[in-house]
Amino acid sequence: MAGRGFWIVFEGGDGVGKSTQIDALLAWLRAGGAGSAEVVTTREPGGTPLGVELRQAVMHGDHVAPRAEALLYAADRAHHIATLVRPALDRGAIVVQDRYLDSSIVYQGGARGLGDMVEQISLWATEGAVPDLTVVLDMEPRADRLERELDRVERETSEHAARMREGFLVLAARAPERYAVVDAARPVADVAADVRVAVAAAMAKAVAS
Amino acid sequence: MAGRGFWIVFEGGDGVGKSTQIDALLAWLRAGGAGSAEVVTTREPGGTPLGVELRQAVMHGDHVAPRAEALLYAADRAHHIATLVRPALDRGAIVVQDRYLDSSIVYQGGARGLGDMVEQISLWATEGAVPDLTVVLDMEPRADRLERELDRVERETSEHAARMREGFLVLAARAPERYAVVDAARPVADVAADVRVAVAAAMAKAVAS
Repeated sequence: MAGRGFWIVFEGGDGVGKSTQIDALLAWLRAGGAGSAEVVTTREPGGTPLGVELRQAVMHGDHVAPRAEALLYAADRAHHIATLVRPALDRGAIVVQDRYLDSSIVYQGGARGLGDMVEQISLWATEGAVPDLTVVLDMEPRADRLERELDRVERETSEHAARMREGFLVLAARAPERYAVVDAARPVADVAADVRVAVAAAMAKAVAS
Repeated sequence: MAGRGFWIVFEGGDGVGKSTQIDALLAWLRAGGAGSAEVVTTREPGGTPLGVELRQAVMHGDHVAPRAEALLYAADRAHHIATLVRPALDRGAIVVQDRYLDSSIVYQGGARGLGDMVEQISLWATEGAVPDLTVVLDMEPRADRLERELDRVERETSEHAARMREGFLVLAARAPERYAVVDAARPVADVAADVRVAVAAAMAKAVAS
């Protein structure tokens, strides 16, 4: 991503602790980890007023056609990047964001079978904006349950979560220099420490280059 | 387009008389031109309740990023085709629609420089839905003004309209078997008669094939 700032995105399945880890990182950045840089936190979908309106349109209405929903998320993203993220980075801010492109690829592209176009549309939407660092909080889904027999719904939910997890790991492996995969199945403080190390290293590398 | 019905789209620049000609065609279809078939009329953008909400979101908000706007139109289209047009055609209806893909290509793709992706995204949005007949109402823009000297704004407006007109003609030339280009710079009744002839011929061909 162009601009003088630094852009960090958190990705991962539901329940891996993204909010907690984002809060911990923000606290560290604001306590000095970011130096004198402005720190901005945001999220997708819904990081802008337009995004909130779009989200309501999807929620309030009756059934929304699946491709329409994917395009609404892409519209939200186009607006969010153009009007919030890019200007913040241009000001030199550190932007910490909850979910971005990878979530769309994994959830809409992979899971709902909408294919590569979800990624292509997102990259077009954002004029190819790619985070400086994506932190994948990785956790084996429902490991506790594997020891006993699962009913059909539990098995399907578990298989879905396993596919989502695999999706994030595949994306991280595609460009390891821009990813940090952190084992999130540990105490919060241990995870937070690993996230800080990864962020500090990536920011130092960005300054050096 | 799959389905037993017949799908007619009207395209053309602003002020060429689309609404008037659509009304005239609907009157003829309902007076017997459509036989016993159901006749449905619709429009883009805003042909569904979700579409109306999206339009309001674009209008009410502050500045909407250009690519976000293009994606909102694509989302509107995806939902409109999936929930209104395709079901109507599957029921065997004749659908008469005000603007579709070509308007997006000409206005967003061509004029705003967003390129081929506008068309690709639209075709993805609709799973490749193509009208049986597109009627282009063609008119030389502001011909009256060409005889006197234009100020700068007038000249730019006129050049823009000329580019839009050229855009529709290029699209029609790409697949002439699915288009009828009708000279709209004539009395309303003459234009309407040509539209009826084109529609009747295309419907007869569709029945025969």
